[in-house]
Amino acid sequence: MGLLMSVDVAVVGATGLVGEALVELLDECDFPLGNLHLLASGESAGKSVPFRGRNLRVRDLAGFDFSSVRLAFFAAGADVVREHAPRATAAGCSLVDLSGSVAGPLLLPALEAGAVAALTLPAQLRAPCAPAAEVAEVLAALSPLLDIQRLAVTACLSASQLGREGIQELARQTTELLNARPVEPRLIDRQYAFNMLGQVGAADASGHTAIERRLHDELGELFPQLKGQLQVSCLLAPVFFGDALNLSLRAVAPIDLEAVCAALENAEGIELVEDDYPTVIGDALGQERIYVGRVRKGLGDPCELNLWIASDNVRKGSALNAVNLGALLIKHYL
Amino acid sequence: MGLLMSVDVAVVGATGLVGEALVELLDECDFPLGNLHLLASGESAGKSVPFRGRNLRVRDLAGFDFSSVRLAFFAAGADVVREHAPRATAAGCSLVDLSGSVAGPLLLPALEAGAVAALTLPAQLRAPCAPAAEVAEVLAALSPLLDIQRLAVTACLSASQLGREGIQELARQTTELLNARPVEPRLIDRQYAFNMLGQVGAADASGHTAIERRLHDELGELFPQLKGQLQVSCLLAPVFFGDALNLSLRAVAPIDLEAVCAALENAEGIELVEDDYPTVIGDALGQERIYVGRVRKGLGDPCELNLWIASDNVRKGSALNAVNLGALLIKHYL
Repeated sequence: MGLLMSVDVAVVGATGLVGEALVELLDECDFPLGNLHLLASGESAGKSVPFRGRNLRVRDLAGFDFSSVRLAFFAAGADVVREHAPRATAAGCSLVDLSGSVAGPLLLPALEAGAVAALTLPAQLRAPCAPAAEVAEVLAALSPLLDIQRLAVTACLSASQLGREGIQELARQTTELLNARPVEPRLIDRQYAFNMLGQVGAADASGHTAIERRLHDELGELFPQLKGQLQVSCLLAPVFFGDALNLSLRAVAPIDLEAVCAALENAEGIELVEDDYPTVIGDALGQERIYVGRVRKGLGDPCELNLWIASDNVRKGSALNAVNLGALLIKHYL
Repeated sequence: MGLLMSVDVAVVGATGLVGEALVELLDECDFPLGNLHLLASGESAGKSVPFRGRNLRVRDLAGFDFSSVRLAFFAAGADVVREHAPRATAAGCSLVDLSGSVAGPLLLPALEAGAVAALTLPAQLRAPCAPAAEVAEVLAALSPLLDIQRLAVTACLSASQLGREGIQELARQTTELLNARPVEPRLIDRQYAFNMLGQVGAADASGHTAIERRLHDELGELFPQLKGQLQVSCLLAPVFFGDALNLSLRAVAPIDLEAVCAALENAEGIELVEDDYPTVIGDALGQERIYVGRVRKGLGDPCELNLWIASDNVRKGSALNAVNLGALLIKHYL
């Protein structure tokens, strides 16, 4: 623990879904928070956000002097982060980036080993994207047990993956359909309501999307032994909140299902649901653990393990990891 | 071709989603149809169904004399099939079962090789479940090209998987939610509207559901070389119609993407969508082909192939295959 009892903090993108969850967690958690500065770009600046009984005004990111805080959370798009993170660093402010764009190390609190001890200040930390964090929590619990040969992740993401605008798009399309009006696609270029979409955002020349690359690369970075063995697909389900992930892996040796369940049961960030399947709406929403169920061996292969994850992608998958990384930074350095 | 110019046919389960699609296809297709008998059990008997400008009365299955037809389609639950299929066979009536319950051979028209030539009458044929038929069409196109080491299928099924009642459940729950009333689960024991469910129906002691077993076993039966290499998960998406399938496979050798696309392009039952992703609502609904898109290699493994399928599970995945099997039977035997 450093000398300071509390640290002044900025949240960039404070009016977004993840930024809002971050501010809530900074309030609820045992976080050594001094002054809190809420920042956003353009039209969101000027709004008010309730915090600890007061209304905090959201200020314009462009004019903010990062030397007034020791730590900043960047819960904004990659372009915003690329523009403003260097300003923070130049001002001596450490940061936790949730967009995956800064050069610093990728860290997951559940995996935090010695990595935090090797930093120089001001630090730039990257938090994983929500599906990578969620899969990584399971892999952290299982990798001491299983020699994984191959892992296929099918991530059914939700409208919240596209931020507040995604949620508005699904709500608007759903309402139009239920009122027997033709669907007018806006944010998404086709009918999203009551339709599974096989792709989240644009694909590059190789056919992969940005979120698939990020999920694939971050899992490979967190678990280097899995490089070249990760199959990743991200779909967009017509639901508002949460991540729903199907994991299917093959280990080198037959699966010991009892040992697997015990390891999941003992993992701090995991709630194991036995003999049932959790859902985002029924279980995970608003929680600080991922929910894992349907843990089962393969139908034709004793080395195969399947499981299902439901998680609050905004709170648990994104904001909580970032807050915990910030707390680790403070504990060791600030 | 046999001596008869047309064959009298019965459709068991004629008022269900698949039965209704079957009747439509018997009308639209070039099928040598004589008299058509529509059958259902219990309360559905007595309804009328329009067919070729007349209204056909749906008769009670229990009292039907199968010796009056040469061919029957069983588009009913496994329990109904197990009770009444033996009566049809005893009466000399050949049948095509869509429930996967009879003992006869599993056939997919796209794969029909010499198998139909080995039958004795009255024949009992099994049509695959919709997701198995859909995956099998892709495998039929690709297996001459690829030595597949491992295939993971994540099937996002729809309310129609549960029949008309499933569709009513999703509609009712959705309406309740949008009217800010609490969701009352009936057919499904939890909130299904705007919620991804990780399981379709009850799981057995090993954790697998009936549809997962059927998908797994039927794919292994159609492609014996894949036995022990198939990973299968079935999810339930809050959409009304269609199957949306994510396929991820690993071949022994690096993937030749051009050759894969050419093989898919040339497959009769497949519409290849290049540089985009098809959806059920935008593309597949009401069609007689499966729509395949997002054909791409792995991010870290040149032997990996990923693709996405959107299909009308009722019409293309189920009814059309059954009708085509019936037509094959007639052509060779009846």
